Amino acid sequence: MHIELVTIGDELLLGFTIDTNGAWLARELAQHGITIARRTSVGDGAGEIADGVRGALERTGAVITTGGLGPTSDDLTKPAIAQLFGRAMREDPDVVESLHQRWKSLGRTGEIPRSNLQQAQIPEGAGILANNHGTAPGIWLEDDRGRWVAMLPGVPREMRGMFTEALLPRILARRVGEPTVVRSHTIRTTGIAESALSDRIRNVAGLDLEGLALAYLPGWEGVDLRLTSRGTSDEDAVTRLARVADRLRPAAGAYAYGDGNTDLAAAVLAALRGAGKRIAVAESCTGGMLGARLTAIPGSSDVLLGGIIAYHNDVKVAALGVRPETLAAHGAVSEETAREMAAGARRALGAEVGVSITGIAGPDGGTPEKPVGTVCIAADVDGVVKSFRAIMIGDRQEVRQRSAQSALSLVRRVLNGTA
Amino acid sequence: MHIELVTIGDELLLGFTIDTNGAWLARELAQHGITIARRTSVGDGAGEIADGVRGALERTGAVITTGGLGPTSDDLTKPAIAQLFGRAMREDPDVVESLHQRWKSLGRTGEIPRSNLQQAQIPEGAGILANNHGTAPGIWLEDDRGRWVAMLPGVPREMRGMFTEALLPRILARRVGEPTVVRSHTIRTTGIAESALSDRIRNVAGLDLEGLALAYLPGWEGVDLRLTSRGTSDEDAVTRLARVADRLRPAAGAYAYGDGNTDLAAAVLAALRGAGKRIAVAESCTGGMLGARLTAIPGSSDVLLGGIIAYHNDVKVAALGVRPETLAAHGAVSEETAREMAAGARRALGAEVGVSITGIAGPDGGTPEKPVGTVCIAADVDGVVKSFRAIMIGDRQEVRQRSAQSALSLVRRVLNGTA
Repeated sequence: MHIELVTIGDELLLGFTIDTNGAWLARELAQHGITIARRTSVGDGAGEIADGVRGALERTGAVITTGGLGPTSDDLTKPAIAQLFGRAMREDPDVVESLHQRWKSLGRTGEIPRSNLQQAQIPEGAGILANNHGTAPGIWLEDDRGRWVAMLPGVPREMRGMFTEALLPRILARRVGEPTVVRSHTIRTTGIAESALSDRIRNVAGLDLEGLALAYLPGWEGVDLRLTSRGTSDEDAVTRLARVADRLRPAAGAYAYGDGNTDLAAAVLAALRGAGKRIAVAESCTGGMLGARLTAIPGSSDVLLGGIIAYHNDVKVAALGVRPETLAAHGAVSEETAREMAAGARRALGAEVGVSITGIAGPDGGTPEKPVGTVCIAADVDGVVKSFRAIMIGDRQEVRQRSAQSALSLVRRVLNGTA
Repeated sequence: MHIELVTIGDELLLGFTIDTNGAWLARELAQHGITIARRTSVGDGAGEIADGVRGALERTGAVITTGGLGPTSDDLTKPAIAQLFGRAMREDPDVVESLHQRWKSLGRTGEIPRSNLQQAQIPEGAGILANNHGTAPGIWLEDDRGRWVAMLPGVPREMRGMFTEALLPRILARRVGEPTVVRSHTIRTTGIAESALSDRIRNVAGLDLEGLALAYLPGWEGVDLRLTSRGTSDEDAVTRLARVADRLRPAAGAYAYGDGNTDLAAAVLAALRGAGKRIAVAESCTGGMLGARLTAIPGSSDVLLGGIIAYHNDVKVAALGVRPETLAAHGAVSEETAREMAAGARRALGAEVGVSITGIAGPDGGTPEKPVGTVCIAADVDGVVKSFRAIMIGDRQEVRQRSAQSALSLVRRVLNGTA
């Protein structure tokens, strides 16, 4: 089964927005053995939309669009495609009703804005794709030859929900015969460079990948190892991927922290839960990022107590009990200060584990001895403190992201005895 | 001048790679007044490449491709497009020579791999676009009607270098007459829905957009208003954009917090600096996100002291001085608790401003009275406290992002007297 994607919006042609919707849809469809034959991005104009969709319909007869469904006047997807199908627009009473429901559920009073009600204008004979994450309904339009266009909103959260809940079941129901299956399995590593990881894997004598493709995907979180299988039955692919992943994982050793899209923060929370310990954070240059990473995981409240954002040195002293002499002798960015911060967070919040970050995120503040990117990290588990100093690469944001990731990695390794 | 982009690679259709090349090229070309009429992504097959490029050539006669120029056998861009132009492939002695040079300059010995030399195969009559950042040369192919295709590599670093150094000068040299200049200006708003904002703007009697396009771009930060000018001289565009933006801004009122890519956190830091006040944060459900937003801005240390991540209620009491009776009577997610948290952060850190967030980020923890997304936010400026309760839409991450943004917005509005 082949589908074409048409993503709509002037901002895509001007380069203001990077089209993540297209990549997400492509991955989701590929997992169900559905091939994207082509992706096209066109502007907001009715003519451009109609031209782009017409060509895609002629080639594959199956088209998904994203964008141009909102309440403002630059959203022309529905009328442009309705005209292509020779359909008039009419107000759908069910959509009007659900717009009113949503308006009330958000606690809003007074009349719904007229522009909002415009979203109830639907092409004749169209099916509605329910939007449980926003107001603009999606549209399914099909002609008498079975050629169809599904119109999704451009807001990623709404698009993803609508695709999964309303569109994908409809597409799968139409599929006939055996699909080509693309499946992948990811092993996540952190704290090891891509080249060092590839050397370790190459050194495993007789490592059999069973025809699976292996890709190294580096990023600030670490290096992901992605195994991909294509073309065989789903069941066979899943077994082979699991088997080869089991062979690959030992080569990555303690650097591997999880599979799939496991977040290192979730792995750390699970380790804390397993050890029956609660954690408190102390953050200087990351300013709350580490706490935000941990609290991003639902259910983190059983092991995360909270923390202190000690951006100013006075706060390091007053709230964390860092000694002024330590700051004077070693500076705010030092392993000594990091160790006292970790211990201070643990004590101040009554936790078993304290973890701290202090560093120079840049762009200013570097010195020859402590260049931008210098970060000191410490973890205190029941009074035993481990720490290290490192230089993180990247801009301010990336230095901070890598610092939070390294702090999580240190806690994980202290807890599992590999630090 | 209109150009179409064709990005080539199976990985784009499988969604493994997000097409950042297309967005980058679009931005660069727009700056020179060149409009991207359409972007297409096709797979690695010779037929797909030829089909995609043929359509683009017929529509605009000016096409840039990226990808499929490397030494591996799945790189079919050159032969596929050569065939489209009715040209044979031949080995280019200059390219052979430069491949040898590069081989030696990298300190490699022995024969160049044959796969590497294949990169010297060039369509007859083609121009070479020098690659100073890799081995694959770019190709310029033009027919007798002046229609052209420029083929760039897919590796972003090589593509960017080649575009800037070799392709852009060639394109600008072809341009005849006055270029169409595309310029835009963005006004950022927060705290108002897209539909309400559009109603306010529509209600401005006699609002003259002077032919500029106005787009509403909603996201969790708020709604951006983007004005775009096309077709006149650069100077005129800049003046017109500024003039229309000045007319539009009052319609957005206190919801408008900045222009261009201003971060609300930066606007808040500037307002604090202007008022000579320092700030401390108190975060529950956002767990450090608000602190991370503020510390993301370089130079924030002069007005941001730090904060308390009070995820557990014990921390709210012990570190922020929230009264247990308040928690018992109103719950952790209440304006009353938020107000005591803000006041507590201000006092605990010795700041003039305290800001707090407490809420139910989900997916669990909601009740009929306080559904998931319920968030209470307070700001204490010199002992005067303002607070509100709202329901944030979206998943856990988005509820948290919107909460941090709303807290920044409250601080800004308290400081400028519009809260």
